[in-house]
Amino acid sequence: MIRIGILGYGNLGRGVECAVKQNEDMELAAVFTRRDPDSVQILTQNTPVYSIQEILDHKNEIDVLIICGGSATDLPVQTPEYVRDFNVVDSFDTHAKIPEHFANVDKAAKESGKIGMISIGWDPGMFSLNRVYANAILPDGKDETFWGKGVSQGHSDAIRRIDGVADARQYTIPVPSSLEAVRNGQALELSAREKHTRECFVVAKEGADTGRIEKEIKEMPNYFADYDTTVHFISQEELNQNHSGIPHGGFVIRNGKTGWNGEHGHVIEYSLKLDSNPEFTSCVLVAYARAAYRMNLEGMSGCKTAFDVAPCYLCRQSNEELRAQML
Amino acid sequence: MIRIGILGYGNLGRGVECAVKQNEDMELAAVFTRRDPDSVQILTQNTPVYSIQEILDHKNEIDVLIICGGSATDLPVQTPEYVRDFNVVDSFDTHAKIPEHFANVDKAAKESGKIGMISIGWDPGMFSLNRVYANAILPDGKDETFWGKGVSQGHSDAIRRIDGVADARQYTIPVPSSLEAVRNGQALELSAREKHTRECFVVAKEGADTGRIEKEIKEMPNYFADYDTTVHFISQEELNQNHSGIPHGGFVIRNGKTGWNGEHGHVIEYSLKLDSNPEFTSCVLVAYARAAYRMNLEGMSGCKTAFDVAPCYLCRQSNEELRAQML
Repeated sequence: MIRIGILGYGNLGRGVECAVKQNEDMELAAVFTRRDPDSVQILTQNTPVYSIQEILDHKNEIDVLIICGGSATDLPVQTPEYVRDFNVVDSFDTHAKIPEHFANVDKAAKESGKIGMISIGWDPGMFSLNRVYANAILPDGKDETFWGKGVSQGHSDAIRRIDGVADARQYTIPVPSSLEAVRNGQALELSAREKHTRECFVVAKEGADTGRIEKEIKEMPNYFADYDTTVHFISQEELNQNHSGIPHGGFVIRNGKTGWNGEHGHVIEYSLKLDSNPEFTSCVLVAYARAAYRMNLEGMSGCKTAFDVAPCYLCRQSNEELRAQML
Repeated sequence: MIRIGILGYGNLGRGVECAVKQNEDMELAAVFTRRDPDSVQILTQNTPVYSIQEILDHKNEIDVLIICGGSATDLPVQTPEYVRDFNVVDSFDTHAKIPEHFANVDKAAKESGKIGMISIGWDPGMFSLNRVYANAILPDGKDETFWGKGVSQGHSDAIRRIDGVADARQYTIPVPSSLEAVRNGQALELSAREKHTRECFVVAKEGADTGRIEKEIKEMPNYFADYDTTVHFISQEELNQNHSGIPHGGFVIRNGKTGWNGEHGHVIEYSLKLDSNPEFTSCVLVAYARAAYRMNLEGMSGCKTAFDVAPCYLCRQSNEELRAQML
């Protein structure tokens, strides 16, 4: 049994807990929290919840620690810190800062002889993998990534910070005609506006000026100004009833040409349709935790991304079973 | 530069030649043939064509030999033989015999210290990889593979062997309603007939009994009897004009449940739409030739499949570039 530890018990930590339950070769050994451990109720029976302060006392009980913190402030500190004592996996998703995070984790992991698996999830993660595979196969081509339909947490938060807004949920939606054009092999230079629309469901506080709120949303730089945005004002009850899920998904599509004169076209498409973004991300984290454990057993150490992991390390089946059943 | 050798110059060998041209870090060093080398015209200027008899004289000029023979009789002999002197890549696709082929290649490759990369292409190959990734992520789920729309060479050949048939082309086509049901997350047990239909374009010899030919096709065990099959009799001119391409493709779709009680559903879909089956297969072979070269440089040897290859070995970009550009 691979003994998994969870650091941080929010949506992602709970997702990891559920995913561990689905994998017969794993057990949840402990959950570590910054909160008072007595205040944290987990789903798994007989698994202890400890304060993060005590984590090093339990290092011999954990094969892989899955770090379920946020990319803004938690992971840049926690991943390099805990890879000194544990094989770790994180879902660091600030694309621009990945090289820096990689360097920090790699240095600490090489010193400790552990594996630090970073930026695991679906983007970065499975989508990144599909970009690499498709680029390797079709070097003379172009890829596009579309996200959605799904809830963007960052954009929802941005709306909630507007004066007069009680609650909000934002959906990112691919533009169907652009998706279809890329899928049909057309090589286009698509602007942000041509790729995605943004749909917002907003609960206004009593007496708030909805016209002003709508204008502030639509003109918000980076978040909304470059997109066609629609705003719907609804009640808190309606938001709770129809928009409480965290679905997401998207598409990675690469077109390429082959032949002596580029006479043949090809389309590679990978897509995800997810009822729960954090639970799916958690499933990916857990598969890569298995890989981290196995690769470290074989003597590997240092920082790894999905690009560095041979697929055979991810499945609980043996290599012989994989070749017989899935090749 | 990675120096590629091609063994066997048919559709696949020519596809490899075209793919090598698209990859800046590769050059075509030589083509080896069982035919009279003087009778083989290749596309690349200044690359020699040699008889297969002379292949060992050129072993120091080749980094990876891509073996472009057939799975029935060529590859089971050639891959174990040539891995004694070369890193090799093949597209062995007889699923049931992969374990045996793996064992033979592995033994020879471990003795020689070379890499023997087998069963590379899209199925086996990219589709297999997507089954493994999706199974690892969603262990509580089910996957289906659909093939087509595309030309099945084996089925076309089977029709051509019928008395009175001058030429034929067979298309395998996914049943749209089944594809849609699987895509929408329905867990179904689909029969062969429910998954694919078969459409045949047949040129009858003059005076042949088309009724008898159609009956023989539709009742042919394994090939057609288990499918809804349509047969169109057309002229050789029409066949040549409208059915001379070798398109193919397909879909690997996995549905799975997550959550403490399986309350959330997810769909992972990978699909290919290929104008030229052999050229796309060739592109995959070439990417894995790069991996074979790099892995062997790092001291690895033995038989490998796509499951054993970390994606970073496939792209000509450095790991730093991949992390910065594609993660």
